[in-house]
Amino acid sequence: TFVLDRDKAEEAYRQKLVINGKETMFFNILPLKYQWAYDLYKTMKANHWEPEDIPMQKDIEQWRDTTAVNDIDRWIIKMGIGYFSAAEGIVGDNILHVVREVVTAPELKLVLGRHAHEENIHADSLVYMLSSLGINPHECEAMFEDVETIKAKNNFVVSNSRALRRDIDLTLTENKQALAKNIFMFGQIMEGTQFYGLFGMILSLYRQGKFPGIGQMFRYTLRDESNHIEVFRNLLMDLVDENPDVWTEEFKEDLRATMKEGIEIEKAFIRDCLPVDSLGLTLDEFLTYIDYIGDRRLESCGLKPLNENKLENPLPWLAEMMDIKKETNFFEGRVTEYRKASSLDTVDDDEL
Amino acid sequence: TFVLDRDKAEEAYRQKLVINGKETMFFNILPLKYQWAYDLYKTMKANHWEPEDIPMQKDIEQWRDTTAVNDIDRWIIKMGIGYFSAAEGIVGDNILHVVREVVTAPELKLVLGRHAHEENIHADSLVYMLSSLGINPHECEAMFEDVETIKAKNNFVVSNSRALRRDIDLTLTENKQALAKNIFMFGQIMEGTQFYGLFGMILSLYRQGKFPGIGQMFRYTLRDESNHIEVFRNLLMDLVDENPDVWTEEFKEDLRATMKEGIEIEKAFIRDCLPVDSLGLTLDEFLTYIDYIGDRRLESCGLKPLNENKLENPLPWLAEMMDIKKETNFFEGRVTEYRKASSLDTVDDDEL
Ligand SMILES: [Ca+2]
Ligand SMILES: [Ca+2]
Repeated sequence: TFVLDRDKAEEAYRQKLVINGKETMFFNILPLKYQWAYDLYKTMKANHWEPEDIPMQKDIEQWRDTTAVNDIDRWIIKMGIGYFSAAEGIVGDNILHVVREVVTAPELKLVLGRHAHEENIHADSLVYMLSSLGINPHECEAMFEDVETIKAKNNFVVSNSRALRRDIDLTLTENKQALAKNIFMFGQIMEGTQFYGLFGMILSLYRQGKFPGIGQMFRYTLRDESNHIEVFRNLLMDLVDENPDVWTEEFKEDLRATMKEGIEIEKAFIRDCLPVDSLGLTLDEFLTYIDYIGDRRLESCGLKPLNENKLENPLPWLAEMMDIKKETNFFEGRVTEYRKASSLDTVDDDEL
Repeated sequence: TFVLDRDKAEEAYRQKLVINGKETMFFNILPLKYQWAYDLYKTMKANHWEPEDIPMQKDIEQWRDTTAVNDIDRWIIKMGIGYFSAAEGIVGDNILHVVREVVTAPELKLVLGRHAHEENIHADSLVYMLSSLGINPHECEAMFEDVETIKAKNNFVVSNSRALRRDIDLTLTENKQALAKNIFMFGQIMEGTQFYGLFGMILSLYRQGKFPGIGQMFRYTLRDESNHIEVFRNLLMDLVDENPDVWTEEFKEDLRATMKEGIEIEKAFIRDCLPVDSLGLTLDEFLTYIDYIGDRRLESCGLKPLNENKLENPLPWLAEMMDIKKETNFFEGRVTEYRKASSLDTVDDDEL
């Protein structure tokens, strides 16, 4: 007695939307509307890693050895573990309690679920680093509580996220813009730009042969981040496509100004907390690197860069460990080739 | 200048609670307070599987072959895929937007994140089954829309979950009880009992050599479910430990009555939709099996079973494929040995 109702099927497809779509009780992933989301879900799965797979013996030896590493190196590691312990939690909470809460299309929920799951894995990897090195987690936390530049960095995103953790009427343009801004702030400013100061520091140590296990985990984390940035960028672009009222000139300027603020906050943090010169880097180059990334994020969302003159990447070796180049052709190629290998060893440098 | 403040560390530990604890911005998993949560997180990871690992060639051949399987077999598969597509979505939404939203201890958030991730994998496995067999997903959905006994089953949990998707004051006993009831309903009644009617049907087919790929995926799913039931049971028990005002005689009777209602709903669904006899099972035994499971779930939470006389499992072969025995010693052994193998082949029948 049950027959397929083709009109119903087409109606269901039409009602698949980033927001304000049908809150289907059924996890109606098929037929796919947001192909990129399912493809990216598969890519993210193929990149799966677990902290226990990475040996920490060498890191433990170095941590205890007064000649192999110095206290500045240890400081950077603690700073990295402490910052990302907070940051991954903030990102995860925002995905689950802000973005996934309002997104209605099931394949978008699927990829957001994977995104949140990877924040879990990252948090677990930090626990693994802490317990391997025997660092008291509260010591890490205590390092943070009194540092204004870190508080500023966290408050910048947390205050935005908290404001959205309530029922909001997403038929109103201003509320849609608040959501779009949240997606931009988390994907492009926080994960996309503010994460890169500490990533750069830890990978500098890794390049010097220091803490190879931790460095490897951060390389895996970075590969994941490049997908997170892409998830949130595609989500923003599709939200804007479906809700063109969001994308006013004024709103675009607001996003650029927010990126500017995020970059300033990151630079203040770097100046205050990251002993760049002790790693043989110059502060100037390091800060320019942050500007460079910020501009790339803006451009990838169709926004004007902050710097009139196109910046060159001042730290090309970092680009080799981080995924930057792949994004340059975003608007030409859109996000079609997600093909990545499941093992880090067979991945192009381009992709990290 | 940063020193470890031991008092602060101890205070942070004390403020780790299931609910109403410190909403720490830091993902302060260490030092662990809820050891079971971290252990179970590791077990769940060790059980990781992906649908693409399971070959579907045989299933596809059978699906197309008019002699190998009959239309009742196909009906059961469609019913299974359709029901779980809805159910896994409902469970996932409830974990993320009700339970994880209010739980404050980070290791609990971690394991709930893994739980939600596994619902994602299960949903993805259903997509894989649908697309392998070439079933139109809307045909599956259409099968459901007019069936009262299925609507009753979904409404039973959805109405509870929706009522909690808002800010609630969790210092009030009645609201804590509403949360505790949600955790009981989802973990013990829905995932713990109502899932087992269709699980039983699909594993009956599997035992007859029908749809081996689908059967294998459901066996993996069941292994995951046994952990989900455990996560939610431990969560309930710790919530009650920390909030003894929840656990009144009246409330316990309410949970028993709700289980009774859940079982009646499941039995009505079985009578209406599951052609038990066509698989060589008797309806009576099949319904008793549901009673049997319901009582085990109640007992595992320290609640009196619904049936005065201890029921025997009428379908012992199903117990061999499903995890029931392990739970009998819950209160003696608490949840200490989570050790499981990562491959299904090396797992005791007890555990499935
Ligand atoms: Ca991330
Ligand atoms: Ca489940």
